[in-house]
Amino acid sequence: MSTDRRSFLKLSGLAGLGFLSNQVSAKSHEEKTTYHHILRESQQSYKPVFNMSGYAAPALSTVRTGFIGVGNRGSAAVYRLSMIEGVSIKGVCDIRKEKAEAAKARIVTKGHEAKIYSGTEEAWKEMCRRDDIDFVYIATNWALHAEMAIYAMEHGKHVALEIPAAVTIDECWRLVTTSERTKKHCVILENCCYDFFEMLTLNLARQGFFGDIVHCEGAYIHDILESLFIEEKRYHKWRLMENAKRNGNLYPTHGLGPIAQVLKINRGNKMDFLTSMSSKDFSLRPKAEELAKTNKEFEQYLKYPFRGNMNTSTIKNNDGSTIMLQHDVSTPRPYSRLHVISGTKGYAQKYPLPAKLAVGHERFFTDEEMKKIEAESTPKIITHIGEMAKQVGGHGGMDFIMDWRLIDCLRNGLPVDMDVYDAAAWSSIGPLSEWSVANGSKPIAIPDFTMGRWQGNKVHNIHLETGGTTQVLKANK
Amino acid sequence: MSTDRRSFLKLSGLAGLGFLSNQVSAKSHEEKTTYHHILRESQQSYKPVFNMSGYAAPALSTVRTGFIGVGNRGSAAVYRLSMIEGVSIKGVCDIRKEKAEAAKARIVTKGHEAKIYSGTEEAWKEMCRRDDIDFVYIATNWALHAEMAIYAMEHGKHVALEIPAAVTIDECWRLVTTSERTKKHCVILENCCYDFFEMLTLNLARQGFFGDIVHCEGAYIHDILESLFIEEKRYHKWRLMENAKRNGNLYPTHGLGPIAQVLKINRGNKMDFLTSMSSKDFSLRPKAEELAKTNKEFEQYLKYPFRGNMNTSTIKNNDGSTIMLQHDVSTPRPYSRLHVISGTKGYAQKYPLPAKLAVGHERFFTDEEMKKIEAESTPKIITHIGEMAKQVGGHGGMDFIMDWRLIDCLRNGLPVDMDVYDAAAWSSIGPLSEWSVANGSKPIAIPDFTMGRWQGNKVHNIHLETGGTTQVLKANK
Repeated sequence: MSTDRRSFLKLSGLAGLGFLSNQVSAKSHEEKTTYHHILRESQQSYKPVFNMSGYAAPALSTVRTGFIGVGNRGSAAVYRLSMIEGVSIKGVCDIRKEKAEAAKARIVTKGHEAKIYSGTEEAWKEMCRRDDIDFVYIATNWALHAEMAIYAMEHGKHVALEIPAAVTIDECWRLVTTSERTKKHCVILENCCYDFFEMLTLNLARQGFFGDIVHCEGAYIHDILESLFIEEKRYHKWRLMENAKRNGNLYPTHGLGPIAQVLKINRGNKMDFLTSMSSKDFSLRPKAEELAKTNKEFEQYLKYPFRGNMNTSTIKNNDGSTIMLQHDVSTPRPYSRLHVISGTKGYAQKYPLPAKLAVGHERFFTDEEMKKIEAESTPKIITHIGEMAKQVGGHGGMDFIMDWRLIDCLRNGLPVDMDVYDAAAWSSIGPLSEWSVANGSKPIAIPDFTMGRWQGNKVHNIHLETGGTTQVLKANK
Repeated sequence: MSTDRRSFLKLSGLAGLGFLSNQVSAKSHEEKTTYHHILRESQQSYKPVFNMSGYAAPALSTVRTGFIGVGNRGSAAVYRLSMIEGVSIKGVCDIRKEKAEAAKARIVTKGHEAKIYSGTEEAWKEMCRRDDIDFVYIATNWALHAEMAIYAMEHGKHVALEIPAAVTIDECWRLVTTSERTKKHCVILENCCYDFFEMLTLNLARQGFFGDIVHCEGAYIHDILESLFIEEKRYHKWRLMENAKRNGNLYPTHGLGPIAQVLKINRGNKMDFLTSMSSKDFSLRPKAEELAKTNKEFEQYLKYPFRGNMNTSTIKNNDGSTIMLQHDVSTPRPYSRLHVISGTKGYAQKYPLPAKLAVGHERFFTDEEMKKIEAESTPKIITHIGEMAKQVGGHGGMDFIMDWRLIDCLRNGLPVDMDVYDAAAWSSIGPLSEWSVANGSKPIAIPDFTMGRWQGNKVHNIHLETGGTTQVLKANK
């Protein structure tokens, strides 16, 4: 048994409670599941090389940037970054040339020399090999994120990755080991960590508003059933294939990111283990079968199991707190990016809207009380850049706050808010939940991607205790 | 392996996925946990004797009633039943004579000859042995429910039990086997099944509003931390002892009852297995330790583990739908008796208030649309007795609707809405969640208390397709 496994059992206090035997019995039945690789990868142990938590890379007055994947969200990122001081856009890559050209056309400031990379599946590598680029921003489909990030870091680039950062546990570990070896930042682009209420609750948590955190909840519940089947929405309908082949919480970080920061995961706390349960699929396969009747192209999906519509996972943390995490993109119900924090003093809940706060059980705060708390406890980054971000847009502003903050950290040589350990831990819930669902919702240990250093890692500041020197530019072309 | 176990594995489709081995491995580690009795009891198999699902007992024009346990909720039940036509209150039992006398004094109609039973711990048996009593209403502390119900049924009485009906799996089975052998109703008094929004959503479910049910949620989240430590609130602080000795979802039925009816559990569907996770205790032991400093009487609790504040359980049903169930009585947050129904067509959510309905993902219904749906789909029992019930009171009226409906069923010889299989299945979540929590949140099979007959049992009517002849009396003394 590896040191990691032993320390996990010791820390989680589960030794001798049949949890180990549970892992072992699962292992001994690997042959009977197609998911044994997930358990095996989750039990690998690695040696620390360099601690990227809190690491301040050398400041870059100009952040020479290349983009990979601009057919969808990446295109808006090109627009946003072109408005941030010190960003020089050097390259825009997409397998579809017209998408790369269209994204380049969204640059709204002068002084960029964006070369187009396209035409081949390897074009992005050529851009990553350039020695006049510092930073690569990756917004391709999920399955390509880790490979591209690892290649870019190997070639001396800091990287930022759309969510999830990885789709396998092995990819999570390779992101960590590569970032440590190259000392390049590997940032997960979890925009929800920068949403206004989430930032407020993070600040309140640090101020002690909630007392000790007992339980948190997060979710990504968004009915995109129809769009999954439309080619124009996503290149080769890649997201439909993810939902056809895999069953679990494939998209955990919107819900998990903000509460993981509240819970100080990887910085004094860690996630110990999870269980995951998926409902049956009531809508994806029926939709595919219906379309396949008239369109042979959809027959390719019918050989896959399809993802159960609702996935509910529970996570036990080392400090004794718990997390309930949900994911559903194929049931018709109002949108919910659930954000719940329940502590020994205070309570917060977003979704259904409006967002609510309470101290004690009697009632939620009034609008007036909420305004007062916002006035007192809104973190500096929001007062500094929030209004500007709302004008730039991108999910109400949070996308721009995220991008601006990241560039400001790179330009000032500050540690990043969401490092490679966050990218790995938050993204690992995807494959770990797949294993649990495939094995009757059995618990599975969550790897400690900090390799023990979570106990010493300092809690990061509340976004902008330092920095904030980077200006927002006006469009000038 | 018992037939039940084999059929469970077959039905739940988990055979060969390591689930069986998980059970076995857990079993082989029984010595290492203090909870092996729960797993063993959950794997017992029994033979059907008589199917109480849908059973219509001979009509009773007069329901000669005795009460056991009137120190708290039972006292209000005496008051409510004294206003229902055809109820003759023959006996009132409580170990504290003053409580029995006080409850008797709450009888507001003439013609009752309520004898007081008190003074000894066996006094209730004397009342159960009378041959001029038809029905025993039990509202003692949890640990006594099953023993009293079994004894009363053995002596020819129908019984109604406060929640939970039982605290062990063995008790659940004994309720079932005793009810089948004696052909006496064993009704669980889950008042939340008769709350107004819950009744509306049950009716909407039967009308197809939700389509296929994908996922449901329920909870009992109610901060009663302070009252747990107050002798006057509960005899011998029995509920504090429950929360000191046991760790799991001790009070599952408020959340589970209403959604179990929506999901047709025990009547065409069944709960297959669950996982359960508890947070650490952040408030109960600290409170006990604080009080013990100045009051030796609290030292007796400190030797126990105490219940983790928040318990989150997930349940997989035979039809592929899932349930998320929560319980927290010791964290300061606004009350929530969460009631969520998510289907392929519609969505319902109660808590935070106001209750909401939706069809499709765009938005929740407006107040006006809600009124229209209530006007169209409020079940007959509510239009028949709802307004009267609000006047009588008891958690906004639902207590009286429940009592009136039960007496009306007994007087008209109708099957009861909540039978012994519901009492057993809903209550079994308590001990099963204890086992899962104690074993690292491992999954555990939920016994099929119908012994296979769930596949043939008819879905009960929506409360009052028949009956409704029993009058509500005016107070006349």
